[in-house]
Amino acid sequence: MSVIDELTNELARLPGIGRKTALRLTYHLLRQPASQSRKLAEALIALTERVRSCERCHNLTEQPLCHLCADPRRDPAILCVVEQASDIASIERAGEFRGRYHVLGGRLSPLDGVGPDDLHVADLLTRLETEGVQEVILATNPSLEGEATALYVQRQLSGTIGGRDIRVTRIARGLPVGGDLEYADGVTIAQAIAARREM
Amino acid sequence: MSVIDELTNELARLPGIGRKTALRLTYHLLRQPASQSRKLAEALIALTERVRSCERCHNLTEQPLCHLCADPRRDPAILCVVEQASDIASIERAGEFRGRYHVLGGRLSPLDGVGPDDLHVADLLTRLETEGVQEVILATNPSLEGEATALYVQRQLSGTIGGRDIRVTRIARGLPVGGDLEYADGVTIAQAIAARREM
Repeated sequence: MSVIDELTNELARLPGIGRKTALRLTYHLLRQPASQSRKLAEALIALTERVRSCERCHNLTEQPLCHLCADPRRDPAILCVVEQASDIASIERAGEFRGRYHVLGGRLSPLDGVGPDDLHVADLLTRLETEGVQEVILATNPSLEGEATALYVQRQLSGTIGGRDIRVTRIARGLPVGGDLEYADGVTIAQAIAARREM
Repeated sequence: MSVIDELTNELARLPGIGRKTALRLTYHLLRQPASQSRKLAEALIALTERVRSCERCHNLTEQPLCHLCADPRRDPAILCVVEQASDIASIERAGEFRGRYHVLGGRLSPLDGVGPDDLHVADLLTRLETEGVQEVILATNPSLEGEATALYVQRQLSGTIGGRDIRVTRIARGLPVGGDLEYADGVTIAQAIAARREM
């Protein structure tokens, strides 16, 4: 197999990129200075070697703590719980939320073999103990699995925090039901955060 | 700048990929095994290091001669002249043409500073002398610049081959005028080759 075919195959494995687009991208890179392909390759290598999980919130980071956990201006009293690290980027783009995050690392999905033990819920409970959290916003996706996950986390929380004064809220359904945080626009996300409700 | 931003920036430099798509691809790669990013990176490096120009026809290849020039089953009597190497892949996909190719390496475009001396025309004339070519198909794009380039090459040929019996044909306008070979479907390209006319 030629390297042109190899690169085309690898590009075509990316979501939303078919064979024809992959071939066009390959020929585009061949027309550019070699430095552009090399930079792209280096960024890919750096991604696999340097990105890891934040020790506190499981956001993606290159440090032990992510930049949001390390930022003293972020309000530790409000904790936003999301399914995956990319959801943090979506919410940050909206610019509405000034608290901190906790990444569950997925959502309950029996069909995919994802159960409660696969989510970072235990250390979420630990954080509530130690960080002076006053509100937990459950910002899992407004899909079936996301709702089930929010409900599961809410029950774990209410069983643990007992009589303590912690609000547990759910991000408002400003997001289209069945949709995905990753594709939502900033305004919709901002409205959904502003209209969050008790649960 | 984080490596996530770096990779997103590099991906967003590719044609047809905006910032949002680039970010989605980056997060997709983060969710995959690291081997996938590494394979993509290796294919990119291999592309810059191993792909070069065929000594005879200027197609892209990893050998001194490309697989089409090296294939004894290809008819040396018919030579198809294209603007760039990616056009060869488009024509090969159509499966109609069984001759050999010659890549000009661009098209006449005064606005972009591309003149006759930037095209591989001199060694095209040499090939006509040495390879027993009986027909030259001019398969530059059916755009303004492509037509001008075809006309220029045709004049160079008729000035050189003199009384010799070489047909010079132009790929038929089965392709939509103003279009681009790279995006044409195989059937259209096959029809355009079958209906080529004297020029």
